[in-house]
Amino acid sequence: MKTILGIDPGIGRTGYGVIRVDGLKIEVVTFGCISTPVNTPVGARLVELERDLTELIQTYKPDRVSVEQLLFTKNVSTGIVVGEARGVVLLVAEKAHLPVVEFTPSQIKLAVTGDGNADKGQVQDMVMRLLNLAKRPTPDDAADALAIAICGSTVNEKALR
Amino acid sequence: MKTILGIDPGIGRTGYGVIRVDGLKIEVVTFGCISTPVNTPVGARLVELERDLTELIQTYKPDRVSVEQLLFTKNVSTGIVVGEARGVVLLVAEKAHLPVVEFTPSQIKLAVTGDGNADKGQVQDMVMRLLNLAKRPTPDDAADALAIAICGSTVNEKALR
Repeated sequence: MKTILGIDPGIGRTGYGVIRVDGLKIEVVTFGCISTPVNTPVGARLVELERDLTELIQTYKPDRVSVEQLLFTKNVSTGIVVGEARGVVLLVAEKAHLPVVEFTPSQIKLAVTGDGNADKGQVQDMVMRLLNLAKRPTPDDAADALAIAICGSTVNEKALR
Repeated sequence: MKTILGIDPGIGRTGYGVIRVDGLKIEVVTFGCISTPVNTPVGARLVELERDLTELIQTYKPDRVSVEQLLFTKNVSTGIVVGEARGVVLLVAEKAHLPVVEFTPSQIKLAVTGDGNADKGQVQDMVMRLLNLAKRPTPDDAADALAIAICGSTVNEKALR
């Protein structure tokens, strides 16, 4: 049995989803979103993100962390800001001695729906079905994080560093 | 008198420069470059960066941190990776309760040389002259960090959050 923490990093909102996988059985443990206050310096928001992520890891003791990897974004400023949040995620995971697996958005869509170009709704529907949820998980960031966690469960133990 | 730590963030190499400013007098304290090993997972490199930056702050006790702000880069992947390093810089500064000032590359060039489009050589020559150095500071990342520190010294105390 393994526990996977999926993370959809962002400076304003970082989605998280924790799943437990045992052979073919897969179940949801928790999911949600870490929000940091707007109109607050980035440094202070990153400190909050670090603290909340550390707490999540201490509470749910995942065996690995699965993170979305951005290869491109609509604009570069977004990329830099998401990079700042991603840096904190990678730092926290490393300090907790957890292996990190990373996937691009299309790898995540492909793993969850079988279609690398699936839209948000299709991904959320498949997350709902795979995890036996009564309805689509919300908010979007949390649903994405669950999809990232599911994708992260497909990597073989031996392939992890 | 105030001490300013200038940082030119990067995942492979992060330049740093510490200057002390007393009225119109400005002097160099130290400068150099934090290198992290290639072929190492980003998380581990970020942990090294965090540790070395924390040590720099403990040793030189700056009153503020001045950081280069990227608004665009040649490619977005670079932006994301630099963002990851920047995130760690902002996190460390915030945890040390230090105010952070940020400048774009052209603001830094303008402050140091009077020309927002100055080339690297012009910036390095002016850094050398302003800090009374016998030769151009090396490596480039350290010279840039000193320029960023000089630029950071121009912000009035009252303007800091």
